[in-house]
Amino acid sequence: MTVKKETLLQQFITVRQVTLAICSHIENEDFVVQPSPEVSPPKWHLGHTSWLFEEVILKQYKKDYAYFNPAFCVLFNSYYKAVGEHTIQSERGNLSRPTVAEIMCYRAHIDAQMTALLTEGTVAEEALALIETSIHHEQQHQELLYMDIKYILAGNPLPTQYINTPLKKAAKPIQAWTNFEEGIVEIGDDGEGFSYDNERPRHKHYLHPFSISQSLVTNGEFLAFLEDSGYTQSKLWLSQGWGWVSKGKITHPFYWSLIDGTWYEYTLHGLISLDLNKPLVHISYFEAAAFASWKQLRLPTEQELEVFLVASKSKESEPSLHPTNAQTASGQAWCWTSSQYSPYPKFKAFDGVLNEYNGKFMCNQFVLRGGCIVTPKHHYRHSYRNFYAPEQRWMFSGIRLARDII
Amino acid sequence: MTVKKETLLQQFITVRQVTLAICSHIENEDFVVQPSPEVSPPKWHLGHTSWLFEEVILKQYKKDYAYFNPAFCVLFNSYYKAVGEHTIQSERGNLSRPTVAEIMCYRAHIDAQMTALLTEGTVAEEALALIETSIHHEQQHQELLYMDIKYILAGNPLPTQYINTPLKKAAKPIQAWTNFEEGIVEIGDDGEGFSYDNERPRHKHYLHPFSISQSLVTNGEFLAFLEDSGYTQSKLWLSQGWGWVSKGKITHPFYWSLIDGTWYEYTLHGLISLDLNKPLVHISYFEAAAFASWKQLRLPTEQELEVFLVASKSKESEPSLHPTNAQTASGQAWCWTSSQYSPYPKFKAFDGVLNEYNGKFMCNQFVLRGGCIVTPKHHYRHSYRNFYAPEQRWMFSGIRLARDII
Amino acid sequence: MTVKKETLLQQFITVRQVTLAICSHIENEDFVVQPSPEVSPPKWHLGHTSWLFEEVILKQYKKDYAYFNPAFCVLFNSYYKAVGEHTIQSERGNLSRPTVAEIMCYRAHIDAQMTALLTEGTVAEEALALIETSIHHEQQHQELLYMDIKYILAGNPLPTQYINTPLKKAAKPIQAWTNFEEGIVEIGDDGEGFSYDNERPRHKHYLHPFSISQSLVTNGEFLAFLEDSGYTQSKLWLSQGWGWVSKGKITHPFYWSLIDGTWYEYTLHGLISLDLNKPLVHISYFEAAAFASWKQLRLPTEQELEVFLVASKSKESEPSLHPTNAQTASGQAWCWTSSQYSPYPKFKAFDGVLNEYNGKFMCNQFVLRGGCIVTPKHHYRHSYRNFYAPEQRWMFSGIRLARDII
Amino acid sequence: MTVKKETLLQQFITVRQVTLAICSHIENEDFVVQPSPEVSPPKWHLGHTSWLFEEVILKQYKKDYAYFNPAFCVLFNSYYKAVGEHTIQSERGNLSRPTVAEIMCYRAHIDAQMTALLTEGTVAEEALALIETSIHHEQQHQELLYMDIKYILAGNPLPTQYINTPLKKAAKPIQAWTNFEEGIVEIGDDGEGFSYDNERPRHKHYLHPFSISQSLVTNGEFLAFLEDSGYTQSKLWLSQGWGWVSKGKITHPFYWSLIDGTWYEYTLHGLISLDLNKPLVHISYFEAAAFASWKQLRLPTEQELEVFLVASKSKESEPSLHPTNAQTASGQAWCWTSSQYSPYPKFKAFDGVLNEYNGKFMCNQFVLRGGCIVTPKHHYRHSYRNFYAPEQRWMFSGIRLARDII
Repeated sequence: MTVKKETLLQQFITVRQVTLAICSHIENEDFVVQPSPEVSPPKWHLGHTSWLFEEVILKQYKKDYAYFNPAFCVLFNSYYKAVGEHTIQSERGNLSRPTVAEIMCYRAHIDAQMTALLTEGTVAEEALALIETSIHHEQQHQELLYMDIKYILAGNPLPTQYINTPLKKAAKPIQAWTNFEEGIVEIGDDGEGFSYDNERPRHKHYLHPFSISQSLVTNGEFLAFLEDSGYTQSKLWLSQGWGWVSKGKITHPFYWSLIDGTWYEYTLHGLISLDLNKPLVHISYFEAAAFASWKQLRLPTEQELEVFLVASKSKESEPSLHPTNAQTASGQAWCWTSSQYSPYPKFKAFDGVLNEYNGKFMCNQFVLRGGCIVTPKHHYRHSYRNFYAPEQRWMFSGIRLARDII
Repeated sequence: MTVKKETLLQQFITVRQVTLAICSHIENEDFVVQPSPEVSPPKWHLGHTSWLFEEVILKQYKKDYAYFNPAFCVLFNSYYKAVGEHTIQSERGNLSRPTVAEIMCYRAHIDAQMTALLTEGTVAEEALALIETSIHHEQQHQELLYMDIKYILAGNPLPTQYINTPLKKAAKPIQAWTNFEEGIVEIGDDGEGFSYDNERPRHKHYLHPFSISQSLVTNGEFLAFLEDSGYTQSKLWLSQGWGWVSKGKITHPFYWSLIDGTWYEYTLHGLISLDLNKPLVHISYFEAAAFASWKQLRLPTEQELEVFLVASKSKESEPSLHPTNAQTASGQAWCWTSSQYSPYPKFKAFDGVLNEYNGKFMCNQFVLRGGCIVTPKHHYRHSYRNFYAPEQRWMFSGIRLARDII
Repeated sequence: MTVKKETLLQQFITVRQVTLAICSHIENEDFVVQPSPEVSPPKWHLGHTSWLFEEVILKQYKKDYAYFNPAFCVLFNSYYKAVGEHTIQSERGNLSRPTVAEIMCYRAHIDAQMTALLTEGTVAEEALALIETSIHHEQQHQELLYMDIKYILAGNPLPTQYINTPLKKAAKPIQAWTNFEEGIVEIGDDGEGFSYDNERPRHKHYLHPFSISQSLVTNGEFLAFLEDSGYTQSKLWLSQGWGWVSKGKITHPFYWSLIDGTWYEYTLHGLISLDLNKPLVHISYFEAAAFASWKQLRLPTEQELEVFLVASKSKESEPSLHPTNAQTASGQAWCWTSSQYSPYPKFKAFDGVLNEYNGKFMCNQFVLRGGCIVTPKHHYRHSYRNFYAPEQRWMFSGIRLARDII
Repeated sequence: MTVKKETLLQQFITVRQVTLAICSHIENEDFVVQPSPEVSPPKWHLGHTSWLFEEVILKQYKKDYAYFNPAFCVLFNSYYKAVGEHTIQSERGNLSRPTVAEIMCYRAHIDAQMTALLTEGTVAEEALALIETSIHHEQQHQELLYMDIKYILAGNPLPTQYINTPLKKAAKPIQAWTNFEEGIVEIGDDGEGFSYDNERPRHKHYLHPFSISQSLVTNGEFLAFLEDSGYTQSKLWLSQGWGWVSKGKITHPFYWSLIDGTWYEYTLHGLISLDLNKPLVHISYFEAAAFASWKQLRLPTEQELEVFLVASKSKESEPSLHPTNAQTASGQAWCWTSSQYSPYPKFKAFDGVLNEYNGKFMCNQFVLRGGCIVTPKHHYRHSYRNFYAPEQRWMFSGIRLARDII
């Protein structure tokens, strides 16, 4: 069931404005750098999200569509090999051109063309579906923009902050657990709205009895692990995780730093002293698994976490760009699950150019569930399967613990 | 339920002899080299399998046990961090000492001590269990010895063969499929004999209707993929797989070579011209997944393959060191499954020193099922979960295809 | 003999203005990127040249000097370990802050402070010497700015040019040779003006009879080498050079490209079709040595080239940012010599903080002589010893051939 | 002036026997491994030295010569690209075949063929010259065998020694200096006997007045540097040297180790406690240059050292495989010079297949002079130019200091 043309136009206009609003807090130079291969320069995100509308929709469905600049097809393609070559990801930060101003012109061009398409005459049903997906795609990049901007600002030797509103102090979460019984459950998209191909089809799954924590792991709980030599006890770690810790000399979560004996955490609100009651974020799967092992508990499977999320009521969180409420089920931190990212039974990838959207990444990644504080509100649903490699941690990733009921 | 002492003694003596028999076909120099970090020098296997008996059993249960050489504790430890340091895996091939002769003395020492332990007085129940596991451990290394020796011999610029018995020509397998219905099945060790911790506990799993091929993919079928530009069509590959193919300039299965327009395959029986009806072996998960994609089919999950194997009757294969029968259910080639290697529900790792045996590798590996031509006969069972990283291919890995029933 | 305060002030003001003039042709984004570890972002050059005045002069000789920003001491230190830590060179392109505007403020602050120092009261003799060296240091960075900006602009997928004035067509140089007799010569700084420590002391050197070309090697001559399979004949290359060619798949000079069968060269004036009479530039020592070997000639030693340069009259060249006159002795392209960069007899490094300026690089580098088209006019003298690693080629490096007289 | 056929035959027989005698002290397994890319397996040396006689002499000058095994042409070629392909140097240790026994057969074959050539009829003058060079080549490899065997044995976790004769204690050298006056000297081969192309032609060189130490730097002197934080003071080091120390975490000479507070040195006579009066060996150019800098002295140029060696009388040293006499001019340790390895004026490489012998390595290497304790006696002469990269140190390299006379 596809959304109506008028609704889509409204969603399109909104999503395009939100992207620009996110970028309104940074300097021209911040748009250019790529301090790590996994991070993209913000100006690349601005171009790439526009390119998808051009490549997937305008090129096919807009009569006599003329490219803004044919070179942008290669430049702003991320990884869609079916539509041609693309710039090597790790070299995006070497390119000074097109400038931010030129990319803003490109965005304006795409906005005008898309608006024209959605206001003039009829649009094919399949085009509407592609537009809806492309809007969701831009929302994904809004979250990536927050992640990448945080990485870029944090790496500067001069103190920087994305916004200067103060972060409120967090309350200590209550330790409580929810139990689930054994049996067959239904997993995946319920068909009520938009979903990606990797959430489908809805299917039966046999669940074993388990218990899951009602709160996210806090900075204070993880600090106890760290102070109990958690990072130096090899027995707590996966084999690859131990290699990662040893080779990378990892001794604390990504944005933590110890200055004159006090722990600090870098946030989009600037560097703050570590709040022990705030949810832990920016940890790798390796750290999450080692912590669970230290607790003699485990991470939930993605099915367990989905069942828990569906059963929970999430409270509305304070507007901020850093999680402050460990007691909430979703919308604070993406929770690592013990599930490696695999296709659902009878999985079928998107047709056409978006075929490469999800399926080809189903290897050596772990699923995260629940959404985070910088996930766009209307982008998230409980069947949403986020995924990252086990060593990555620049996303807002955290921990919710589970245990078997025996 | 543990095995009796007398039975174990007999099994111990047999397994130790078989290891030596495997090594009787190679030259002293072949025992030393390590042409790839994942390959171990055969002399290291001889030492390591002996070391496990020393570390896990003799040290604890043999009264007044004196080490043969304390330095061997570090030298022949593979990765058991709980019992101390170990030599870096990739540097095993840099060590010329101890010599093969010295390691043979070490083996003889361990044999004598173990025999004494198993013939004198009573042995604790838990020790018997550890001995049984250590015997199975040595059987695992027998398969590794075949794999590593094959790698070592194949890499020499001079023609070599492990044995000179001729390989019989294979018959073309019949294309037939077996269907399975939807429903709950029991997966994992049935408790009838020995099993590793990762096969346990037996548990319920919801199976979706599927069909699975009765034959393994043959060299001929894979050659068709290769000749249809299978290695150069990015859309067939996982994203990481495409990176692997591109960076490594991979254009054919590991032991294949094209000489003057004819395809050859290196086997333990020497270099032979490619037999199109023999089962395909020595391919990576990436190649298996790309081939399945090209066929518009898929790999089975590990549960699907277990259910198929349990339901099948395997014919006795001809004694050889290369698979020749694509029509057999098990014992020819380890089949890649689409299942990433994860703990079973309520998984509990071995206690004690063997705790690190399996669990810590449950990350970025895929499960293979079915046993191969060089798997020791009494080592294999249908619940057996072998696992390798998706780019590895020096093991006897092959493909059995599956598809959804819709 | 040091320069007078008033003269230095005038030189200081000029050099600071020239640096800004060089940067006036590029976009804000061009100041930020670092497409190769050896290339620095232009904004880093702007900061670093200012920092040297602050660190070496203002900090010591300006009463009550207050840092513009103490963090800049680390940020803009290149490699002077004696004065503290410095940012890792290859990560300069990861830093978006300070912004270009902030660095311009820093420059203005340094300009004001230096002007004050040089107009108020007396300045110590040693400070004047340091100021003179720091002015020459900024001139070195002016040449680096041209080199780095060329690299940055060339790497963009969109066509760019630094300036749009057209380049004139070059005349074919006359092939003529100058002979020099055997005997003792004096090498090094003649004491008439400023020089670096590595040009001193002037000393005797025994010269063997040689002949040297009056013209630089042209693009056309090098194209003949390329078309005679110069890049694929291992016998022409140094051992390390052959490794460099093979590993890097090098097949032509750095800024050359073959488009639809026609050779082009990227210049600061934009992409132009290859002019066969223009001097060859942007080649590595490896390429220069292979070319000389192909010609059955050799590169001159640095002493031979110095003697030639001193004996020659250089014609004034047309103002351009690309060499056009292969017939000129100096000021077109830095010529590779066969001399590895070593200390002169009785070499003594600068005292104090500039001690690390030259001496510590005397290892695995080759000397280049003669100055190039983008070398600031008053910066160059014939005793000038430029030096680069044998694989580097983003500088304006070319070839002048020599041969023994037997 | 070439040597007579009969003399050459005697030299050939002797050199071939000496190589085998060197190898008679090690185990079969020691012949196989390659613990570092620069180290070759001893069995490779045995094959390679034989191959040179086959490739350079037998193939051209022995009538109807039949290869022992054509595959050996690739296998045992080191780097002579003109004569075809060769196995990648760093992969020599991956090859288990040919076995040591097979290579011994190959040697015997070459011995027989060469003996036949040198006893039957006349041999062309140019062939005699090539034979002489190939004999010197095998002597070079005798020194390499000592170096490589030392590296291989030292790296084993079990204690090993090459020979078990005890090493005598060294006497403290007298600190004395020899002065040389300014003027023109003659450098290079004096034409009295065999020399390599890189020692020729003899030529004039202008020498500046200098003083040079009559003794080699001892372990005790270097220990004082180490204990004065020599390895952690960046100002003492070349820029590349500091990178090498930092990245490699270098804190002491190659074969030194600190065990329970006492310094030990690994020698071919086994591990011994550090003798403070023995000559320092196995250090890199970087360490030598840093030590000289710490002493406020310098390394000699290669011409200075040649002049000193020619003027000195070397005492006969005790037969051992480790230097014990710091007071001797030559034959104890190769002394690093400050001269980068460059061609002499009018240098002309060997003709024919040996053209690649020396010239192509004249880049990023430093010259060492004086011969060491394991250099074959009749192989050495004072004009001998040994050369290594500045970070290498598995050869018997040491330090003789020099200073300017001002």
